[in-house]
Amino acid sequence: MPVKTNDPLRKTWLKVPADSDFPIQNIPFGVFLTRDDIVTIGTRIGDYAIDLGALHQLGYFEGIPLTDDIFLQDTLNDFISDGKKTWRLVRNRISEIFEENNAKLRDNDEHRSIVLFTLDEIEMQLPVQIGDYTDFYSSKEHATNVGTMFRDPENALMPNWKHLPVAYHGRSSSIVTSNVPVHRPMGQTMPAGADKPVFGPSKLVDFELEMAFITTDANLLGEPISVADAEDYIFGLVLFNDWSARDIQKWEYVPLGPFLAKNFASSISAWIVTMDALEPFRVEGPVQDPAPLPYLAQEGQKSFDINLEVAIAPENSDATTVAKSNFKYMYWSMAQQLAHHTVNGCKVNSGDMMGSGTISGPTKDSYGSMLELTWRGENPLTLANGETRKFINDHDTVILTGYCKNDSVRIGFGEVRTKLLPPFEH
Amino acid sequence: MPVKTNDPLRKTWLKVPADSDFPIQNIPFGVFLTRDDIVTIGTRIGDYAIDLGALHQLGYFEGIPLTDDIFLQDTLNDFISDGKKTWRLVRNRISEIFEENNAKLRDNDEHRSIVLFTLDEIEMQLPVQIGDYTDFYSSKEHATNVGTMFRDPENALMPNWKHLPVAYHGRSSSIVTSNVPVHRPMGQTMPAGADKPVFGPSKLVDFELEMAFITTDANLLGEPISVADAEDYIFGLVLFNDWSARDIQKWEYVPLGPFLAKNFASSISAWIVTMDALEPFRVEGPVQDPAPLPYLAQEGQKSFDINLEVAIAPENSDATTVAKSNFKYMYWSMAQQLAHHTVNGCKVNSGDMMGSGTISGPTKDSYGSMLELTWRGENPLTLANGETRKFINDHDTVILTGYCKNDSVRIGFGEVRTKLLPPFEH
Repeated sequence: MPVKTNDPLRKTWLKVPADSDFPIQNIPFGVFLTRDDIVTIGTRIGDYAIDLGALHQLGYFEGIPLTDDIFLQDTLNDFISDGKKTWRLVRNRISEIFEENNAKLRDNDEHRSIVLFTLDEIEMQLPVQIGDYTDFYSSKEHATNVGTMFRDPENALMPNWKHLPVAYHGRSSSIVTSNVPVHRPMGQTMPAGADKPVFGPSKLVDFELEMAFITTDANLLGEPISVADAEDYIFGLVLFNDWSARDIQKWEYVPLGPFLAKNFASSISAWIVTMDALEPFRVEGPVQDPAPLPYLAQEGQKSFDINLEVAIAPENSDATTVAKSNFKYMYWSMAQQLAHHTVNGCKVNSGDMMGSGTISGPTKDSYGSMLELTWRGENPLTLANGETRKFINDHDTVILTGYCKNDSVRIGFGEVRTKLLPPFEH
Repeated sequence: MPVKTNDPLRKTWLKVPADSDFPIQNIPFGVFLTRDDIVTIGTRIGDYAIDLGALHQLGYFEGIPLTDDIFLQDTLNDFISDGKKTWRLVRNRISEIFEENNAKLRDNDEHRSIVLFTLDEIEMQLPVQIGDYTDFYSSKEHATNVGTMFRDPENALMPNWKHLPVAYHGRSSSIVTSNVPVHRPMGQTMPAGADKPVFGPSKLVDFELEMAFITTDANLLGEPISVADAEDYIFGLVLFNDWSARDIQKWEYVPLGPFLAKNFASSISAWIVTMDALEPFRVEGPVQDPAPLPYLAQEGQKSFDINLEVAIAPENSDATTVAKSNFKYMYWSMAQQLAHHTVNGCKVNSGDMMGSGTISGPTKDSYGSMLELTWRGENPLTLANGETRKFINDHDTVILTGYCKNDSVRIGFGEVRTKLLPPFEH
């Protein structure tokens, strides 16, 4: 673990607002378009975006084995492919460069003007080219709520659920980053009591509060990754809104799972927070009973204490927080998920993304979807402006935020903010 | 339609064996490694592989709008992205270059020595970088067989099945081409009568006889493709063996669909046969009753008459043909599949792949999987060497072949040949 970099007493010569998600202890990675219309890989401290391509050209990463153009790319895939040792060397070096007593960049006006951007000068991009995206279903509370509503309250969890991290493949091509609006999907649904399906806009568009981790190249085709090694192949995490059309889903998903109900859009936050930055926030996960099979057995603090929130902002209105949950509620850990995913030899590449599944907590205000918060629309939520919502309306903006916090430091993810537009018109 | 190129009387100055899958009327596209260890895009006539990168450098594509390096790539994605008009211009030009009376290349020894390779001089590669892979479930006979075995013979087809082309997302990273061996997967299964799952090698590894089509960039996120336009976004087809582990699948797939039972490996043939080459083999598809919703309604000959076969070759033994089916049995057409896939705005990119689902015919010898051919192992097949098979054994090679044939021409896909190895060992 990079102790100095995570030292809560470490300060930077950059101005960092109180309660920022991005103190010098965070150092996330992202991709942005600069004022000169150049795409570069960067990091963020406080409200400054830092051009790592420029820093590298100026020699600030000397001694670290990096190709010349590693940061002059429009995705993080190649950098992530360099592996954990390199990520850590780079993150630690960035921490040194911006440490308050390090004069090298601090006192070089020319270099600073090349390297630093204010947030209004840049436009964040999707940070990785996602080859494959898998979505798990690892919150017991969420699976229980859904099973209770749609199947059998007495047997809400399927027999396999506590034995393996249930998952399905999602669609990579429809993943966008924060601030990219998405359209309400059209689709086929079966109205209650009808004898044939109808076609039209989904009436039940929902968010799902999730997080997702981004992997590096983990294995050869055929080769499993052990649960003990799995975290070494995880680059970091993002917030993830797994948009869902409940009425489309209900009609289409038997027997092969969700498809068009999900793949119209999925939204991730723009900055990937590294596993190293999250290290101080490790916690025990839920007790697993029955004990998992040996290939899934994991000791120690296998989860992370990450506070998660969802807010809804109607057009021209303030946002209302509608749910507060926590990543630590996840029954299956990321290491267990990745070990399970590869136990059959499935190949995992740099830039692949694995979603947690909706993260619902134990209380009604900690549920991670409108489906659960309003219990299928039976109990609409009232927003700050007096309007009510069963699901998400056109022109609503859904905002997911997440942060870790202890007595001395806050490490955050920023937000993933997405406006729902009416169906696409030619 | 490119009439001259498809003219069955057209002959080439290259030697083409009788009954070759690759007469001058085919002109498929693929990627291969040459004797000089260079990766290039190419086509095939008879038993010659033709280096399109070299042909382009030598000026043979003059007048067609192509970038200089369009064929000097390790995938077809960029060429496919150029669109249908360009594919057609290139295919038609290749047909002209190799037409028997065209002396330009035929009589240029130096150029011929640069451009032509025998098959033993090259190694075929995966032809596209597959961003997203979707598998449909569009054979009524297959869905009925599976529904009869695992659910309810009286209601074998789910209520949604005749209203929409059911599909699920698959895993792109595990797709390999012909002649790449794959490992039997390890995994979790629930033995009959047991009260807890066990871990070990899958005991029920199966092939699935499918075809898959490769798309070009079709739309913006949010924008549907109409069924009338859909075929314009399909570059061509390959044979597809969707390897399946039936015991893993049975335990894991509820409620979100198949996952590790599928993503350990999927195998496609190396040459992509274009839609233009298949044009002479259009046929009616099955009658669709009830009539699909308007967004899925399609007139005319929407399917293709493609003969499909599966053979199994045990180690050191001859192959035995175990199934003969046909692409035309598919209930839902490719155009309907693509229109459905995008009706919600799902983005489709160049190089995306969409599998048909197992293509089973109406008779017991036309079923597209061992699951169906042996009816869950109840009726083992006897191979030519006297051995029997319920499913696929270690060291067996499974060979899928496919071809169209009429009185005057045969257009084939070659084969996808895959050996099943024992589980991976470190």
